[in-house]
Amino acid sequence: MIFLFTDFGTGGLYVGQVKTVLQARAPKSPVIDLLHDAPPFNVKAGAHLLAALAARIPPGSVTLAVVDPGVGGSREPAAVLADGCWFVGPDNGLISVAAARAKKCEVFSIGWRPKELSASFHGRDLFAPVAAMLARGDRKTPTLKKAALAVSFGADDLGEVIYVDHFGNLVTGLRACKVPRDRGLVINGRAVRYARVFSDVKLGEVFWYENSLGLVEIAANSASAQQVLGSRPGDRLS
Amino acid sequence: MIFLFTDFGTGGLYVGQVKTVLQARAPKSPVIDLLHDAPPFNVKAGAHLLAALAARIPPGSVTLAVVDPGVGGSREPAAVLADGCWFVGPDNGLISVAAARAKKCEVFSIGWRPKELSASFHGRDLFAPVAAMLARGDRKTPTLKKAALAVSFGADDLGEVIYVDHFGNLVTGLRACKVPRDRGLVINGRAVRYARVFSDVKLGEVFWYENSLGLVEIAANSASAQQVLGSRPGDRLS
Amino acid sequence: MIFLFTDFGTGGLYVGQVKTVLQARAPKSPVIDLLHDAPPFNVKAGAHLLAALAARIPPGSVTLAVVDPGVGGSREPAAVLADGCWFVGPDNGLISVAAARAKKCEVFSIGWRPKELSASFHGRDLFAPVAAMLARGDRKTPTLKKAALAVSFGADDLGEVIYVDHFGNLVTGLRACKVPRDRGLVINGRAVRYARVFSDVKLGEVFWYENSLGLVEIAANSASAQQVLGSRPGDRLS
Repeated sequence: MIFLFTDFGTGGLYVGQVKTVLQARAPKSPVIDLLHDAPPFNVKAGAHLLAALAARIPPGSVTLAVVDPGVGGSREPAAVLADGCWFVGPDNGLISVAAARAKKCEVFSIGWRPKELSASFHGRDLFAPVAAMLARGDRKTPTLKKAALAVSFGADDLGEVIYVDHFGNLVTGLRACKVPRDRGLVINGRAVRYARVFSDVKLGEVFWYENSLGLVEIAANSASAQQVLGSRPGDRLS
Repeated sequence: MIFLFTDFGTGGLYVGQVKTVLQARAPKSPVIDLLHDAPPFNVKAGAHLLAALAARIPPGSVTLAVVDPGVGGSREPAAVLADGCWFVGPDNGLISVAAARAKKCEVFSIGWRPKELSASFHGRDLFAPVAAMLARGDRKTPTLKKAALAVSFGADDLGEVIYVDHFGNLVTGLRACKVPRDRGLVINGRAVRYARVFSDVKLGEVFWYENSLGLVEIAANSASAQQVLGSRPGDRLS
Repeated sequence: MIFLFTDFGTGGLYVGQVKTVLQARAPKSPVIDLLHDAPPFNVKAGAHLLAALAARIPPGSVTLAVVDPGVGGSREPAAVLADGCWFVGPDNGLISVAAARAKKCEVFSIGWRPKELSASFHGRDLFAPVAAMLARGDRKTPTLKKAALAVSFGADDLGEVIYVDHFGNLVTGLRACKVPRDRGLVINGRAVRYARVFSDVKLGEVFWYENSLGLVEIAANSASAQQVLGSRPGDRLS
């Protein structure tokens, strides 16, 4: 199974081209779109989102992870085997939080290069072929060598909004298991109390809860917390 | 075949997690995204959209339907077998219009519960596993019992905008077979006449026509009826 | 393999219905979403986008291409076999640039019609069934006859913005191999210089480069060229 985690956007020109490569090179692997609207250019937010999603990814799968504002520059590609799950993407920190939190983790440099490598779309030209090789169980062609990540954000939580979902809920980089339930949070100057779930508060009320990925999420019952609070990715919590 | 009908948004964190569960539990069932941008929190609009789409769903399939603002509260899950098609989702009215219009319909409560049930994402934790079971022909594990829907909107049409599409066309909950062609409709204080199709009216002209789902739709030729009329889901027609 | 290229939008009611037909009629063909947010109603922009993507489509595949503001009017359907790739869609110019640039190209009229043909959704009722037939290798049922395209935009480049991607990059209809690297381009009264890739310019700087489809693209490093320049599809370059 191959998972895709990118900031390519759901509607655009890029996901289909990546899938065309995967289909040609690993036709038997189902491909699942995990997320394509990770905050653009925001590698740190993406790293925390990916780490939260990684906890639910089945072992044996391969995740192609691309939030890559430095594409075509000096950053290198990397492959990581974390608790039995492969991650392939740029070595710019994106995979590093998932790697740092894994019980068992191996990091590899990737020696393989395609005949034609575009300057701006390594997702299609480099990461997708390598992901397909790994999905087929081929660890030889990618020419992996043990290495360390050049950029790492570490395992710690991130007290910021890392994603705003379709409903206007604000996903943060705080794991809810580390935040006492009686602790109020402050975002954009506004205090927000804990509730178990949407239907436990009044219509329109803003609260925080443990979302389905185990993260602190600021939400409003049948309303958009984003609109109420005017928040966006990168806003800090205290 | 498994169909997904939700208000999760196309870009977000949720659809991929549902598909991960379906892939693990019913790997041989193709999964088709029917709609992921049903109007958020608007169960009634979703119910009428789902009923219109249901008429084109092949028998033997399973539709996971989730517009569920009350998730985690007291509403129960339900499974409905309507004219040979399974529907699985919250018993909050969402499936009720499709059920009420079916020639033959059976309603079931669902006894099965997952080991871990998040407070806010029953689509992933409860409805997806049950949909996968039914797609595999397993009617035993979900522990179905004959029941009645707790919430039903009935079979009648809804004289409201229930969806605004990508082009700005306004889909309504009125079935076009019940509206005489010489009848003008009024929306947001503006009279709108019937035409067969876009190319039968002038560029930019607003009209109503029978859309490809058999519903009255208010549209404009090569323009956005939404922008011209300033309409949105919930606006009434007369 | 079946590719979908449309202006239906990624979130909407239409793609899922097309896939339902393809799944029923060609269940063994993988379906890949190439693009669903081609500029709405803009057939010429779509034709140039499709031609650029077509260069990367594998022979033997079938592409269903629909940007069809004249649906239900007098325009005819067409099938084109260009360098071993099938294209099925309206004969309104959409397929014509890909056809004109192919080394070898055959154009066919389509005689087959469905029992029920909606006025507004030939993508589902006519093009999808024909695409499925061709994907299964059935050239008989579509009742193809050698023909010529009624509308053609020719093989020449288009000096316009033809697509704005998720990041705000402005894709143009100019093939980069035909534009000298030392040539500055002017868009919306602003001169834009060439750079190889994002990371070669300062944060926020606007430049043009050869994108991964071989087209001239106007971009900004970690910023939205669309927002900086206020551009949109149809804006001319000089």
